[in-house]
Amino acid sequence: MALIVHKYGGTSMGSVERIQNVAKRVAKWMKAGHQVVVVPSAMSGETNRLLGLAKEINPNPDPRELDQIASTGEQVSSGLLALALQAQGVGAVSYAGWQVVIKTDSSYTKARIQGIDGEKVLGDLKAGKAVVITGFQGVDEIGNITTLGRGGSDTSAVAVAAALNADECLIYTDVDGVYTTDPRVCEDARRLDKITFEEMLEMASLGSKVLQIRSVEFAGKYRVKTRVLSSLTDPLMSLEQEMSSGTLITFEEEETMEAAVISGIAFARDEAKITVLGVPDKPGIAYQILGPIADANIDVDMIIQNQSVDGKTDFTFTVPRGDYQKALDLLKSKVQAHIQAKEILGDPKVSKVSVVGVGMRSHVGIASKMFRTLSEEGINIQMISTSEIKISVLIDEKYMELAVRALHKAFELDQK
Amino acid sequence: MALIVHKYGGTSMGSVERIQNVAKRVAKWMKAGHQVVVVPSAMSGETNRLLGLAKEINPNPDPRELDQIASTGEQVSSGLLALALQAQGVGAVSYAGWQVVIKTDSSYTKARIQGIDGEKVLGDLKAGKAVVITGFQGVDEIGNITTLGRGGSDTSAVAVAAALNADECLIYTDVDGVYTTDPRVCEDARRLDKITFEEMLEMASLGSKVLQIRSVEFAGKYRVKTRVLSSLTDPLMSLEQEMSSGTLITFEEEETMEAAVISGIAFARDEAKITVLGVPDKPGIAYQILGPIADANIDVDMIIQNQSVDGKTDFTFTVPRGDYQKALDLLKSKVQAHIQAKEILGDPKVSKVSVVGVGMRSHVGIASKMFRTLSEEGINIQMISTSEIKISVLIDEKYMELAVRALHKAFELDQK
Repeated sequence: MALIVHKYGGTSMGSVERIQNVAKRVAKWMKAGHQVVVVPSAMSGETNRLLGLAKEINPNPDPRELDQIASTGEQVSSGLLALALQAQGVGAVSYAGWQVVIKTDSSYTKARIQGIDGEKVLGDLKAGKAVVITGFQGVDEIGNITTLGRGGSDTSAVAVAAALNADECLIYTDVDGVYTTDPRVCEDARRLDKITFEEMLEMASLGSKVLQIRSVEFAGKYRVKTRVLSSLTDPLMSLEQEMSSGTLITFEEEETMEAAVISGIAFARDEAKITVLGVPDKPGIAYQILGPIADANIDVDMIIQNQSVDGKTDFTFTVPRGDYQKALDLLKSKVQAHIQAKEILGDPKVSKVSVVGVGMRSHVGIASKMFRTLSEEGINIQMISTSEIKISVLIDEKYMELAVRALHKAFELDQK
Repeated sequence: MALIVHKYGGTSMGSVERIQNVAKRVAKWMKAGHQVVVVPSAMSGETNRLLGLAKEINPNPDPRELDQIASTGEQVSSGLLALALQAQGVGAVSYAGWQVVIKTDSSYTKARIQGIDGEKVLGDLKAGKAVVITGFQGVDEIGNITTLGRGGSDTSAVAVAAALNADECLIYTDVDGVYTTDPRVCEDARRLDKITFEEMLEMASLGSKVLQIRSVEFAGKYRVKTRVLSSLTDPLMSLEQEMSSGTLITFEEEETMEAAVISGIAFARDEAKITVLGVPDKPGIAYQILGPIADANIDVDMIIQNQSVDGKTDFTFTVPRGDYQKALDLLKSKVQAHIQAKEILGDPKVSKVSVVGVGMRSHVGIASKMFRTLSEEGINIQMISTSEIKISVLIDEKYMELAVRALHKAFELDQK
């Protein structure tokens, strides 16, 4: 007997029939003798409907009230799932985040989980019930409802699994696992049976949208064995078959030992690049450039500062394309004259492509293989950034698909 | 400065535009210097939509889960109203029942309020905020969400007004007050400026659906000055005009002194009558007949037992028409032989008509005037039942409208 946490996304909960399918799948696990906690998202479209009403009423809505409103979507889907489980002959009870309690900070619409009290849930499991817990939400210290941001139900599920010391967290979604790269860009993309937590973190942060990045951080911090798998399969397939499907996020050393050198090619299409030329090379200059950008809530990703020549240097960084014009205007109006920069240049049509893999720690030559591959395709590299397990390059957007496909082939990701 | 509780029904909250109108009205009260607590229902249709989903998934739904699901309707409307108030430049915060706290027993779908903690709300009011509290719901001792049953938001509003010691509770609805009888049946029906709590109780229990009966009980118990008025008027009408509209439920002796002898004609159309003939007149016989009916959750209203002749008596009672066949079958299969009753007769097409008024306490002749009026119209009285402030008769359904109109005229209810 194991304690398993299931998480189902909005598409999997999108209709009465789909909720009934989820209930059949959970009932199968219960009847095989396992304890199951289920964390569902709101029925697909519901969160958007609620936030749409709120914004129609108030274009500048108070985030506290948004959370009061948006959190109801999961409360409804959780109650419906409990009813569907009962219709399958399985004892079930649903709890909103505040009932569990899932304690968070007070950052409305993007709260962080601080702790989960598992006592009530463990009592219900012991009594043979399936426990349904609303994803996406919690409650702060003084009883205000909070939500965790888009995709927050993934984080809820992993955090609940950590708090209950669950044997495994199964994230059911509308894709059947994590791929070596996006199959829409490269048709040879292959589902990975396993991926390490660190690789998953890089893949998630680099734009593979299978899991919310905070859920991966949680899985890593608390070593929650997490599997991403499809909710669109036959709900009554055998448990053995089900547990060998999808992609498992691993932490075990022996498992990472078997891992390939490179696990996947990640990419972020909509990047933009800004270069400040002729900046005096003195302490505090990076802060003077990036401070106003950060104050305007613009995410800065890659940052490069070249060796200075004659006391002057060039400073380049990337921002999401949607923030490009705003960042450029800020620099020209508030920074350029102040720091006596010679010129400010920009390019809003660049993309980032990365190779990711824990294996590159112990293998030399990954970078040179990557650069050679791109060079052979005639793709110019504009910026380079590296971490322990990934190498990212910035290239002209029009070459992005070509770069992904070429790298996927060069690192033999199409072969098991 | 006064502390006022406003309650708005589902129709008044039925669209973005209507919610904005409610906000305008509340903002007007706030700007005039009053403290306002608002108790809204769910947007019209929402509770039915949620319960419909639940019953589609499970025809025999667990009432606890129904309450988890149905309670979200008010949480959404309350959050939206808080946002609409903020858009009007009024500080506002919304609370679900469990956040207030509104404590109830654990009778899911028909819970009763046990207590309300007003501290948080009074703090917000002091800080100049409008406070929006979900109607229809509360939380039991161990943190389960409960709902108060259909129309429960009226009870929430009056209970909140009692707990906060509010100066007045304004129940905004889609009718503009309490009428001498249903205007759809009698075109001479007239709005009452005032009605005593006891009369309102009889009117509510006898089928005038303006207020949930429990809210009237609450208003009486805690002497909450309650006014029923229209939400469809101009939200920016003057406060003086607004406070002289609708119908005020009074408790003051001097006010009841001025009251008319009869305040209104109430009726219940869909009644059914069952008579058990030739019942042995011995202790326990009423229980033997009505026990199985009560066990089947069928409401019994009027009950009459005649003087016995030769140790035998006849026993007659009324039930809602929808339960008629079930009650008849129960009696024939489980009771008749057991108590050796001679025969069981029934009539599913009867209606109850009542005259109500605190004035009849001190006036003789109300009953004879009522009976004479019906007799002059050729309407046969099948059963009679009386209380301190009402006289009810059971008549053939086909005469109901005629009886209501004749009584309305005879008691001069069309005249102020």
